[in-house]
Amino acid sequence: MRLEMICTGEEILAGQIVDTNAAWLGNLLMEQGFEMQRRTTVGDRLADLVEVFQERSQHADIILVNGGLGPTADDLSAQAMADAMGVSLRQNKHWLSVLQQWFNARSIELSKSNLKQTLLPEGAIMVDNPVGTACGFRVKLNRAWLFFTPGVPSEFKHMVQQQFIPFVEQQSVQQQRVDVTKLLTLGMGESSMAQLLESMDWPDGITLGYRSFSPYLELKLIARDVSDDQRQLALRQAQQLLNDTVVACNQPNLAAEVHRLLADSGESLALAESLTGGEISSQLVAFPGSSSYLRHAVVSYCNLAKTELLQVPEKTISDYTEVSMQCVAQMVAGTSSALGSTATTSYALATSGIAGPGGGSSDNPVGTVVIGVKVADTVHCQKLLIAGSRGRDYVRDLSVAVALDMLRRAILKTAPVVDYPYINRLESQSFAIAEL
Amino acid sequence: MRLEMICTGEEILAGQIVDTNAAWLGNLLMEQGFEMQRRTTVGDRLADLVEVFQERSQHADIILVNGGLGPTADDLSAQAMADAMGVSLRQNKHWLSVLQQWFNARSIELSKSNLKQTLLPEGAIMVDNPVGTACGFRVKLNRAWLFFTPGVPSEFKHMVQQQFIPFVEQQSVQQQRVDVTKLLTLGMGESSMAQLLESMDWPDGITLGYRSFSPYLELKLIARDVSDDQRQLALRQAQQLLNDTVVACNQPNLAAEVHRLLADSGESLALAESLTGGEISSQLVAFPGSSSYLRHAVVSYCNLAKTELLQVPEKTISDYTEVSMQCVAQMVAGTSSALGSTATTSYALATSGIAGPGGGSSDNPVGTVVIGVKVADTVHCQKLLIAGSRGRDYVRDLSVAVALDMLRRAILKTAPVVDYPYINRLESQSFAIAEL
Repeated sequence: MRLEMICTGEEILAGQIVDTNAAWLGNLLMEQGFEMQRRTTVGDRLADLVEVFQERSQHADIILVNGGLGPTADDLSAQAMADAMGVSLRQNKHWLSVLQQWFNARSIELSKSNLKQTLLPEGAIMVDNPVGTACGFRVKLNRAWLFFTPGVPSEFKHMVQQQFIPFVEQQSVQQQRVDVTKLLTLGMGESSMAQLLESMDWPDGITLGYRSFSPYLELKLIARDVSDDQRQLALRQAQQLLNDTVVACNQPNLAAEVHRLLADSGESLALAESLTGGEISSQLVAFPGSSSYLRHAVVSYCNLAKTELLQVPEKTISDYTEVSMQCVAQMVAGTSSALGSTATTSYALATSGIAGPGGGSSDNPVGTVVIGVKVADTVHCQKLLIAGSRGRDYVRDLSVAVALDMLRRAILKTAPVVDYPYINRLESQSFAIAEL
Repeated sequence: MRLEMICTGEEILAGQIVDTNAAWLGNLLMEQGFEMQRRTTVGDRLADLVEVFQERSQHADIILVNGGLGPTADDLSAQAMADAMGVSLRQNKHWLSVLQQWFNARSIELSKSNLKQTLLPEGAIMVDNPVGTACGFRVKLNRAWLFFTPGVPSEFKHMVQQQFIPFVEQQSVQQQRVDVTKLLTLGMGESSMAQLLESMDWPDGITLGYRSFSPYLELKLIARDVSDDQRQLALRQAQQLLNDTVVACNQPNLAAEVHRLLADSGESLALAESLTGGEISSQLVAFPGSSSYLRHAVVSYCNLAKTELLQVPEKTISDYTEVSMQCVAQMVAGTSSALGSTATTSYALATSGIAGPGGGSSDNPVGTVVIGVKVADTVHCQKLLIAGSRGRDYVRDLSVAVALDMLRRAILKTAPVVDYPYINRLESQSFAIAEL
């Protein structure tokens, strides 16, 4: 069975938005054991749409079409599909009554542009949309079923989960089953990792894939018709080879892993973010339940914020600069006890550094970063030199990643500072909190 | 001239990453006055790659191919292109010597997997890559020039800007010039906006496009061969119609606009983020130069953080709850003077609310949000009720957007609280700081 996707919309083709629907669908299909074979993206021009529907319908068995079902003049999917089939548009009475009820319930008048959303190609089978005004539909042309879905992500996802996946399952003599295990890694380059892994033997049916999303590199172990034992064996082999660079398994990102560990631990956390500006806090707060452990974060962007809110002694900054292990150790201790000595948090994490492009000095060039984490009565700090030439976002993103990983290791009661092959550490030091 | 893109890589097709290269390229081409007509995304299977190269080369004039030039076994673009042309791979001597120098300079041995990167289809023209180990190349097949670029975003962008765009310019009898003006809006739905705008007359050659990226809606005025005067006229007409919902013009996002205004103002800012958890801070800190105005942010996630770090009286919380205008007004005042009364900031902004899915009550259901901004000696607060059913991310994203817009209006010396058609305000109130 050949499965394809057609994404429509000038704003996607012209790059004004990145196509998260497509990524989400590909991922979901993969998890369900289906592989997509091709994705075609076109704009809103009627002729282009007609052409792509006619052409791909000769090659694929099922085509999910996304977008172009909205109320505005540039929403042309139904019209284009009708043209491609050589039929006209017909009003769908059922959807008309659904819309009338929907608008009546909200005391809004049903507009002419919404009426357009009741017009489907003759012969189309309507697909319900309980969360929006655009119904979906499916039609058969040439070899393919074309399945039309709305572009609004919440509506799209609902329709895919409730209607499209069951349709695919029902249509398909299921393809080969695919299991994917993902190891999230930090601090090793793609060619080094490939050389390391590809020199080993892997069970038949296991292939390796790499996904780089800076600063992380994800290794995928793709198993096609492989026994669970063989798959576990391959996974252990990969984990041993990659060692300390593995930071999570089957998690979408490192913040999700840290959130899971902290929520399970019953412990508390305080943050002090200078360089990272609130990004660590924001990544954790994205998860419901983060209030069970996160007490507060202080974005101490100016030095006065460090001395006033975090009680960093002025002398520490003048003696060592604000991008020093001494200063960051004080920031960690200061944020941990910022709500009073009786409310000291179990863990605390702080960052300081020069993100660039300006602000560097000979002592602290752009890319100099210090990160510290508190475990029990000790603050563990390390100072990194990140290639400033890779840009401000890279310096901040890599700092967030290393900080989260130090915290993760602290929660797991392992050494917070480890060697990542591709990250340049200048020095590291531990401070007893009592002596700060 | 017909311009297309082919994106390769299992991880893009299967949605493990969203394809930011494609979005970036589409946007860049649009800005240069070129329109892309189709984008095809395929995985790493050799047969699929050969098929798509042969097929699209019959329809397009220039095809940018992205990805598959890396050192690993799943990088197959050169092999597939050679197969599609019926030629073999040949080692490119020039690129071999470049790699040898590159690795020698770093005292790393040139690996077998990197040697693979010197193999190009016979007859290909090499394209230099000064920032990575994968050279690009271009070949002619059927009607098309296929231009191969590496998948690593920094290398891809460099090659596109330095080599691909000049190549397109040279190849093309330039298409029709396109000018795009973007108005970023907040608080109006797409069908309402379409109905409002499409009832008006617009100059010939002006078309309207909409791009929804929650919670914003961007209106694009697309001008094809239209005079500057006509374009300005259309822009003014759109601005008048959309009125208070317009929050920026030709900016990628609202944070960029607020950053620009603050950096120009010479004023200072402090934040207190409870609900938004550091996201406002992080969005501003993403821009170099943000240290010129941002003093600090306090993520006061627990109530103790509000009373200890922001000096919110406990009685305010017990009398009014932490999601009240009284509490948020105190948070604004508290963060503004947190570094000492002599260091009070010019502006201050605070958020509090119930993001959900848990934590709601009858007084403060999920989606209840209070935002306050300080201008001169006054704090302006408003309390919103956002549809909690749209999820935690939506509540937080819309709160960040409204907060940034209140700050933007404060800097522009206009009323910080305005009516957005689609945002439900429960109440608003102003507090004199002296009386808090």
